[in-house]
Amino acid sequence: MLRFIRSLHLESASTLQERIIPRYLPNKKLYNLTWPSPPQNVYITKKPNNKEVTNSMIKFINFLNTSHPEMNIILNNQVINELNQLRLKTDLDVVEKYQFNQLDKVKIFNGDLDLIKAKTDLLITIGGDGTILNSVSQFSNSNVPPILSFSMGTLGFLLPFDFQQHMEIFNKIINNKGQVIKRSRIECHVIRQGLEEKNDRVMKHALNEITVHRGSEENMVSLDISINNELLTTTTADGIICSTPTGSTAYSLSAGGPIVHPLIEGILINLISPRSLSYRPLILPHDSEIMIRLSPKNRNIEIKLSIDGIKQPDLKMGDEIHIMKKLSIDNNIWCVSGGENDWTKDINELLGFNKSFKERPR
Amino acid sequence: MLRFIRSLHLESASTLQERIIPRYLPNKKLYNLTWPSPPQNVYITKKPNNKEVTNSMIKFINFLNTSHPEMNIILNNQVINELNQLRLKTDLDVVEKYQFNQLDKVKIFNGDLDLIKAKTDLLITIGGDGTILNSVSQFSNSNVPPILSFSMGTLGFLLPFDFQQHMEIFNKIINNKGQVIKRSRIECHVIRQGLEEKNDRVMKHALNEITVHRGSEENMVSLDISINNELLTTTTADGIICSTPTGSTAYSLSAGGPIVHPLIEGILINLISPRSLSYRPLILPHDSEIMIRLSPKNRNIEIKLSIDGIKQPDLKMGDEIHIMKKLSIDNNIWCVSGGENDWTKDINELLGFNKSFKERPR
Amino acid sequence: MLRFIRSLHLESASTLQERIIPRYLPNKKLYNLTWPSPPQNVYITKKPNNKEVTNSMIKFINFLNTSHPEMNIILNNQVINELNQLRLKTDLDVVEKYQFNQLDKVKIFNGDLDLIKAKTDLLITIGGDGTILNSVSQFSNSNVPPILSFSMGTLGFLLPFDFQQHMEIFNKIINNKGQVIKRSRIECHVIRQGLEEKNDRVMKHALNEITVHRGSEENMVSLDISINNELLTTTTADGIICSTPTGSTAYSLSAGGPIVHPLIEGILINLISPRSLSYRPLILPHDSEIMIRLSPKNRNIEIKLSIDGIKQPDLKMGDEIHIMKKLSIDNNIWCVSGGENDWTKDINELLGFNKSFKERPR
Amino acid sequence: MLRFIRSLHLESASTLQERIIPRYLPNKKLYNLTWPSPPQNVYITKKPNNKEVTNSMIKFINFLNTSHPEMNIILNNQVINELNQLRLKTDLDVVEKYQFNQLDKVKIFNGDLDLIKAKTDLLITIGGDGTILNSVSQFSNSNVPPILSFSMGTLGFLLPFDFQQHMEIFNKIINNKGQVIKRSRIECHVIRQGLEEKNDRVMKHALNEITVHRGSEENMVSLDISINNELLTTTTADGIICSTPTGSTAYSLSAGGPIVHPLIEGILINLISPRSLSYRPLILPHDSEIMIRLSPKNRNIEIKLSIDGIKQPDLKMGDEIHIMKKLSIDNNIWCVSGGENDWTKDINELLGFNKSFKERPR
Repeated sequence: MLRFIRSLHLESASTLQERIIPRYLPNKKLYNLTWPSPPQNVYITKKPNNKEVTNSMIKFINFLNTSHPEMNIILNNQVINELNQLRLKTDLDVVEKYQFNQLDKVKIFNGDLDLIKAKTDLLITIGGDGTILNSVSQFSNSNVPPILSFSMGTLGFLLPFDFQQHMEIFNKIINNKGQVIKRSRIECHVIRQGLEEKNDRVMKHALNEITVHRGSEENMVSLDISINNELLTTTTADGIICSTPTGSTAYSLSAGGPIVHPLIEGILINLISPRSLSYRPLILPHDSEIMIRLSPKNRNIEIKLSIDGIKQPDLKMGDEIHIMKKLSIDNNIWCVSGGENDWTKDINELLGFNKSFKERPR
Repeated sequence: MLRFIRSLHLESASTLQERIIPRYLPNKKLYNLTWPSPPQNVYITKKPNNKEVTNSMIKFINFLNTSHPEMNIILNNQVINELNQLRLKTDLDVVEKYQFNQLDKVKIFNGDLDLIKAKTDLLITIGGDGTILNSVSQFSNSNVPPILSFSMGTLGFLLPFDFQQHMEIFNKIINNKGQVIKRSRIECHVIRQGLEEKNDRVMKHALNEITVHRGSEENMVSLDISINNELLTTTTADGIICSTPTGSTAYSLSAGGPIVHPLIEGILINLISPRSLSYRPLILPHDSEIMIRLSPKNRNIEIKLSIDGIKQPDLKMGDEIHIMKKLSIDNNIWCVSGGENDWTKDINELLGFNKSFKERPR
Repeated sequence: MLRFIRSLHLESASTLQERIIPRYLPNKKLYNLTWPSPPQNVYITKKPNNKEVTNSMIKFINFLNTSHPEMNIILNNQVINELNQLRLKTDLDVVEKYQFNQLDKVKIFNGDLDLIKAKTDLLITIGGDGTILNSVSQFSNSNVPPILSFSMGTLGFLLPFDFQQHMEIFNKIINNKGQVIKRSRIECHVIRQGLEEKNDRVMKHALNEITVHRGSEENMVSLDISINNELLTTTTADGIICSTPTGSTAYSLSAGGPIVHPLIEGILINLISPRSLSYRPLILPHDSEIMIRLSPKNRNIEIKLSIDGIKQPDLKMGDEIHIMKKLSIDNNIWCVSGGENDWTKDINELLGFNKSFKERPR
Repeated sequence: MLRFIRSLHLESASTLQERIIPRYLPNKKLYNLTWPSPPQNVYITKKPNNKEVTNSMIKFINFLNTSHPEMNIILNNQVINELNQLRLKTDLDVVEKYQFNQLDKVKIFNGDLDLIKAKTDLLITIGGDGTILNSVSQFSNSNVPPILSFSMGTLGFLLPFDFQQHMEIFNKIINNKGQVIKRSRIECHVIRQGLEEKNDRVMKHALNEITVHRGSEENMVSLDISINNELLTTTTADGIICSTPTGSTAYSLSAGGPIVHPLIEGILINLISPRSLSYRPLILPHDSEIMIRLSPKNRNIEIKLSIDGIKQPDLKMGDEIHIMKKLSIDNNIWCVSGGENDWTKDINELLGFNKSFKERPR
């Protein structure tokens, strides 16, 4: 008979050693991921409120505990809360109960996000693209550890591995046999009108895109867009998307944008439904200083700002978004990759790029 | 010295004779507007809260009273209220006071919208495109009288005349010398989920477009679109625009749509930022039955519906928008036109269609 | 043992009675095809130099001879020549030899195209879209008989039937049980510079499109485009496509055009790679007079003109293409249809319209 | 009275010292052009058969001879021939005759292109974009000297200076006060079917683009496109454009492409009228190996290849175009620039980027 389910075995992440920064050595289009000393602190995030994902995470933790007892497993408070609530449920089956029991034998490290950021050697995400974007956004204003992402059976641009491969891939990564693709983030800060002193210029980082949108207002937004202090254009539109190459296959693609390879060092500027016939998407150098100002003539009261699909406080007329490179941190995101030509395959298999017209079989 | 300003001289429109339906006789691309008996009831609308527009309206009323005393002038309550508040202002100049004094000598007919709709021979709008759209929307579910629109100095697709021409054009119109362009409306009704009995199938009419949009939600909307009871596509997008040819140069153009001549008998279907690479705008026959259903998988709680830029009650998952022709009323809108080739000129002068690249003069 | 192959049994089509013009009665989106008297003269065309197609045609002729001996079969000289050459081949198999033998028992009517045009009650094409376009182009400057088209196993916008259905469909058509879709042609004539007297204004008709293109010249063409004698635009481009709604899913689609339902009464104007940012496709009323003039500043010596993909004599600077409705003939093309919603299905199955992004299965 | 016109004073360029390679020091978005020793050999090219351009060139040579007698002026044979023919004309005016007389006092260096390439310190072009593209193409397979380009009064992306500024700008350049923008070329070679041994892999370089096109054939071309030996797509289209960022505002823009800043290190792939709904332009890393293969199923006999608008020998089915970086030469083109924000200005002033809709003044 199974033991009665008790509770997670928690400990503060403050006892862990400081994070190890790996080296990334170019190898054709990818980079070899090599560790100066063996990685120990593994931070695991997951898609919330999905049973299959949660079970996979527990399975992964148990795998680490069994096969790699030297690894320290870090979870954030949100995930810990979800696990605690889940174990109260009465509809767990035998296998799930067994997995939970095993989990209780594992020491789980936790703490606030700043602590986690200081300790994480390797970030592991289980879920979909949203889980990755969310996890990376937790590392705003700091270097992001290498990311190993698993999906629940559907692969994608940011999801080269199915969870079933977790043992094989994890072992490769910690043994210096992993390959990563370099992706870049863009960073911005918002200067709000009349709050000159309070604008602490907190940097926000986007792996996909920064979006300004009219939201539920019927009126379009009026934006002044400058590049390197030169006015590029004044536009009336539903909104604007400033996207990384990684984000070029997300919202920007829906808005008619081109497909930009992730290794391009550039920023994609794309308007959403602009009131102009003569608009085209722009690709600017990654170190351009881009300023988007909400024209004072906006009648809209509250304009929407979102970063990687996460809502930010509303903007008002006169507010400015500044996109520029701060040199203090590394804006590269190193994602464990399935192979050099994944992108070409994904363009075809995920997007159905340039499909020929079919003849309809009778 | 000017007399003290008193008040408007109001009378119920119920005393007026029923509206006269003019005949529209084809003349090349336009139609000659001819009256079976002289028009008498003139309904005047205007852009709200704009001093120049208001002064022009008062001038127009005084012109009618002086030169065409047989004309009955109809105003709606909103305009009457605005005039009453305006005369309380102390900053009117001498000319404005004089005009107001003249206005007090004029009998003004009013009443609720149903009464006005039953009496109006000729609709006159003073303002911009928005004023026209708004005034036409007051005639939802009924035939629209011929429309004569004046702008304050800028011309446009729906605005062929400057207010300065008001005497000359008005005289032409009532003397069977006016020419009108035939524009078409589309009509729709909404069937709301679980309200089967309460769905009174009130028809709504659009001169420009019917728009469904995600609004401030981060998630896209998921829509099932059918044509004549055959599923056309299931789409995930920011929204959809169902546009008349007239509306093809409005929101649909921003969303990448083609330019459709107003005489085309068709409906333009255009998605806003669809999550697909293989999308193109569609032009369907004007008598197609189009059904847009908010898929039950929409996580968005409140999806925005607007008709000609006017907000409608929010939609919920499962709700359906039905666009189809009801045969009971005339969906044509007859707009007094400046000439057969106005459209070609407007395409060039307003939109800057197909402008050549300039060489930059030194 | 099979008889030795002899020769076709030919007779002049001049002995046939004049063609019968059927009636087309509206039935929802389609029309019922009804014959005032039973059709007798069937003109059969086919894709050249394709063995499978030729065998199907012979099979179809034999079917007519056996099951509908009252039908007169008309072939043009090109097809007759191909049949005569084919029978000289030594590699025919037993079934083919048998079919040829049967064919020799059938009376085949022939003559020049003008004679065929005067006699044909029903046009049957066997092959692909190109076969239909080619056959219809033989009826330039005259009414086109109803068209029944068979494909060799792949269906399409113009190809609703597989050859295997030939007996069933043919029987329906002649028994007033067929349904047709109304498609429209556009007609044009070319006025060549300095040949004022010689320009006999021969009308040319397009079921898909009229195309002007720079061809192999490196320089773009410079075109002046007028609508109803008003200059629309002067453009520098690779070329221009003037398309019917039917042609909107052909070349115009490749050039970025919208999808226009065949029942729309309009002409689609689409430039090919114009030297402008502010270009959009236009949909004009079907009775617009469109004039495309090759600007005298064209340095290109020979500019390409093609109609439905068939090369026409080259154009020179100063030449004009006039697209306008001549009232003398019927520009409708009545194509036997598989059903009211074929178009919606074809948009999806042939073009992959608005396909969602796939998740890549592992 | 003027002396009788005699002849040019020619001398072989072989006597000149070897070319001096300048240094390019990064300065924000541009580079400072500095010479290790003073430049001496100036190669001047011009637009052919344009009187104004020729007069400007003669004026420029006379300026150099007078103000910078240490400079050696190099002209190619084509220009020398044109000058010799021009002086035979009888309609020269007094100023032109005087200029020609002055020209006869100048020592002109000439030789074949290889000799010129070995000696040129600074390339000066007078004319338009075509003159620059042509002059740069003369430096295929070798480093290109810095380019100073003058136009005849119209400025452009590649033409920041009017000829009137020639003295001022030239003096800045030779005194280490010039600023240049770094542009990149792409290089390709063609492997022709069945000519394995004869394919000498001559590299061709494009500053704007490499284009494959169906030319005057009615059939589209069928192309297999690979990236880094992985098949990207098989396409049927009018053609393909492989463009540099500089070329993104040329042909690719007409074909619907995005606008790419010249500092982006990437290659823009754009299809011309592809037979697909699901196509988008791609931006690939500059060191991608791109292979375009003319599918064996092409029925087109002769497919057109052009580089920077200059016709190359026709392609046949099976032929391959390989775009890849050879490391032996510098693919950067250093163009004297008017200032850091020229690009942003040009986007607006030359292309009319994102122009708002105008209201038409009455």
